[in-house]
Amino acid sequence: MPEPWVNSAERIGADLHLNLPAEKGGRQAALTRALREAIREGRLAPGTRLPPYRSLAADLGIARNTVASAYAELVAEGWLAARQGSGTRVAERAAPPRPVPAARKAPQAPPRPAHDLRQGQPDAASFPRTAWLAAARRALTAAPHEAFGPGDPRGRIELRRALAEYLARARGVRTTPDRIVVCSGFAHALRLLYGGVLRGPLAVEEYGLPFHRDLLGTAGVRTVPLGIDERGARTAELGAHKGLRAVLLTPAHQFPTGGPLHSERRAEAVDWARARRALVLEDDYDGEFRYDREPVGAVQGLDPERVVYLGSVSKSLSPAVRLGWMVLPEHLVGAVLEVKGQREAWASVLDQLTLADFLASGHYDRHVRRMRQRYRARRDRLVRALAESAPHIRATGVAAGLHAVLRLPPGSEGDALRAAAHQGLALDGLSPFRHPGATAPAPDGLVIGYATPPDHAYPAALQALTRALGAATGPDGTVVPAG
Amino acid sequence: MPEPWVNSAERIGADLHLNLPAEKGGRQAALTRALREAIREGRLAPGTRLPPYRSLAADLGIARNTVASAYAELVAEGWLAARQGSGTRVAERAAPPRPVPAARKAPQAPPRPAHDLRQGQPDAASFPRTAWLAAARRALTAAPHEAFGPGDPRGRIELRRALAEYLARARGVRTTPDRIVVCSGFAHALRLLYGGVLRGPLAVEEYGLPFHRDLLGTAGVRTVPLGIDERGARTAELGAHKGLRAVLLTPAHQFPTGGPLHSERRAEAVDWARARRALVLEDDYDGEFRYDREPVGAVQGLDPERVVYLGSVSKSLSPAVRLGWMVLPEHLVGAVLEVKGQREAWASVLDQLTLADFLASGHYDRHVRRMRQRYRARRDRLVRALAESAPHIRATGVAAGLHAVLRLPPGSEGDALRAAAHQGLALDGLSPFRHPGATAPAPDGLVIGYATPPDHAYPAALQALTRALGAATGPDGTVVPAG
Repeated sequence: MPEPWVNSAERIGADLHLNLPAEKGGRQAALTRALREAIREGRLAPGTRLPPYRSLAADLGIARNTVASAYAELVAEGWLAARQGSGTRVAERAAPPRPVPAARKAPQAPPRPAHDLRQGQPDAASFPRTAWLAAARRALTAAPHEAFGPGDPRGRIELRRALAEYLARARGVRTTPDRIVVCSGFAHALRLLYGGVLRGPLAVEEYGLPFHRDLLGTAGVRTVPLGIDERGARTAELGAHKGLRAVLLTPAHQFPTGGPLHSERRAEAVDWARARRALVLEDDYDGEFRYDREPVGAVQGLDPERVVYLGSVSKSLSPAVRLGWMVLPEHLVGAVLEVKGQREAWASVLDQLTLADFLASGHYDRHVRRMRQRYRARRDRLVRALAESAPHIRATGVAAGLHAVLRLPPGSEGDALRAAAHQGLALDGLSPFRHPGATAPAPDGLVIGYATPPDHAYPAALQALTRALGAATGPDGTVVPAG
Repeated sequence: MPEPWVNSAERIGADLHLNLPAEKGGRQAALTRALREAIREGRLAPGTRLPPYRSLAADLGIARNTVASAYAELVAEGWLAARQGSGTRVAERAAPPRPVPAARKAPQAPPRPAHDLRQGQPDAASFPRTAWLAAARRALTAAPHEAFGPGDPRGRIELRRALAEYLARARGVRTTPDRIVVCSGFAHALRLLYGGVLRGPLAVEEYGLPFHRDLLGTAGVRTVPLGIDERGARTAELGAHKGLRAVLLTPAHQFPTGGPLHSERRAEAVDWARARRALVLEDDYDGEFRYDREPVGAVQGLDPERVVYLGSVSKSLSPAVRLGWMVLPEHLVGAVLEVKGQREAWASVLDQLTLADFLASGHYDRHVRRMRQRYRARRDRLVRALAESAPHIRATGVAAGLHAVLRLPPGSEGDALRAAAHQGLALDGLSPFRHPGATAPAPDGLVIGYATPPDHAYPAALQALTRALGAATGPDGTVVPAG
């Protein structure tokens, strides 16, 4: 007559694919794991009665307690059920019929294009790994123990001090460290500001990042487009909208059309904010990258109580370092911190400490200088390539930033994108950046992110671009003058 | 007769506190900075006419172009105004009357208490700096260039692979890397889930973190409290609320009352979720820290399609590393990623790469083992100190985690907190953790975060605690049996 449990201990041993380690310590864990796997995979079916401790222990040559503990573990987890008088069985509901499949619905990363000139990214190959690691070593070694505790919702004081100094020196920002709130980037800053601090419609430039408009839309913020002309955003239009409470500007280098905001417009925006008790949100997304002259200082310097200055390392270092900052008027600091929450600092403290050292030791300046030269050379090369191979098309906007806009003959944007795709070249058309409510004529164009590829891949990307432009617009395409 | 500009070039030179560098390159920047500062601080008043380029250049002994460029810079920034025929003047609106004051409204960090036994924090002094830096060096050196690009919203594949392996091995979690979404911690995960993915009322344990309830309340989520008894959350109550779509549980170690969820309750929760097409949200906040036995595996292993597993390094390593993870049922992966956003990965990629190495190289296991021993010793010491000095009070809950609950005689919680404050001891009372809708009797108690202080400060903190308990409850206080 067979034992009352279906699988003999020997059989169980085989079912378990059991490979018990020689060291005593790991045996229980190994047995537990093997039993759990056998139940999961259906080798031990629901309802199956397991051998008594002593039998299995004897058969496996291990201590009875080891088996007892493994059973107890699996009972606690719900794989086994132990009932007085009826021994230990595989729980009825323990066996899922199938292994966990990989997620089918997860968006897969799209295939990498052969050439990539999409905007919005610095050259990932230029991240200063060695200098960053050295800064991390210095910073983490020197940090007080409390740095590894819950932390200040404003961000580490070391970083806020280094930022106050750097931003004053490099960008003309006027602040003290306690008006700076560290966050994880521009989008996070916008979410915090429109997550309970600011209200009411927001004026935006009629060209801008769709992602930011979407984010604001999701937060219930109505955006009102401001026209753009050769002096930048038409700040005179601000007065026409009575309910406006703020305007979001890219004064250093309009994104994406590429012009700087004229000094009169800078003053006009600040005057409007003063008169209406409104705010200027200054997105200084690539303020460090000006190639034809020294960068123009931040609008924030004109009135720190009416301008919220927003910056990040996403363009200057890498989006992989999720760090940004807000420099706030005094009256907003408390409200922003309330929304941010005392208990969720969001941004890595380790990266904050490292960036503080990176800034204070001058490595950040060095990196920016190096990238400025590199990007400038790339922009020059783009301009030359166009002059040689597509002379009817030129890069508009000032020599700055990580991208240039090419104005195309009317109606040719779609053709150019298709021709680019045919060349294996990924890039952005100009029209998706246009605010749906913009009223001025919509020029055709391309936004060329010349910072995106690594150095070695840039020449081939440019060739693909000029080939695509030739195919799409022809050598005699109408030259559209820069607006 | 004086020059038509008020300040002579010489006078300007003095006003500027100008210290021109010997190298030619920095002179323009130095002059620009000095002029800007002089305007800011009111030394150059609004309307003041500046000397012509040539005069100032001659007086300062620098090139005319240098002065011209500095003026142009300040015109562009809005500090100066240049009008045809009337020279360059300090702009009328350029001079703010006062320097930027430090933010008065910013919440200042509260003064550090002499002794700190507040819950929720691992020992900040135990952060494994050296091993972490070594992992960072390996990870950042080995990472492909694209790691420094915009990245995958699910998080780095290296980390998701390491987590899938670790969570299967250490917590019995069943997953593939593409069902894992990296975030910046538990609160971020909750925000993502209730920021557009999940809807409807959520059952929670009647004791839990007020911060989480607040966060859910802000997101518009109604929370329904479940009673807790000696087997953990009363999952049978789930059936009584028809509209419930999910239940948030802390199965490994109920927070804060300290019991594990009984195996029948684990099964009951999963069965309920299956029957109702609802979800179990499993907060495995200190699942690695069990001192009396091997940790009980995650509920998620019972049904990966009905349980969302949520973990982070906030307790196991440090809240300074802002990293957490969600292990998602397949049908939620796409929706969570949509809310998370393709363009904002939130969590530092550098820390993700480092944690991946830290996990895969076994350093994480070693750190957890070390902390387990250390926290266990601290808990034992707490229990001994109570037995010796406050025998009428004992620590309830299982030997696990980073905190213990002390049940106090009825009505004495406030007295105990006041007595603790008198000893310079910061700690948490039990009552704030109670859901406002809970109906069962509300016991008095203290939540002791024995992990919080550094090793050297722990004995003194314990002494302060026992003194406070003696003062508040007296040596003959009524012993309240653990529920």
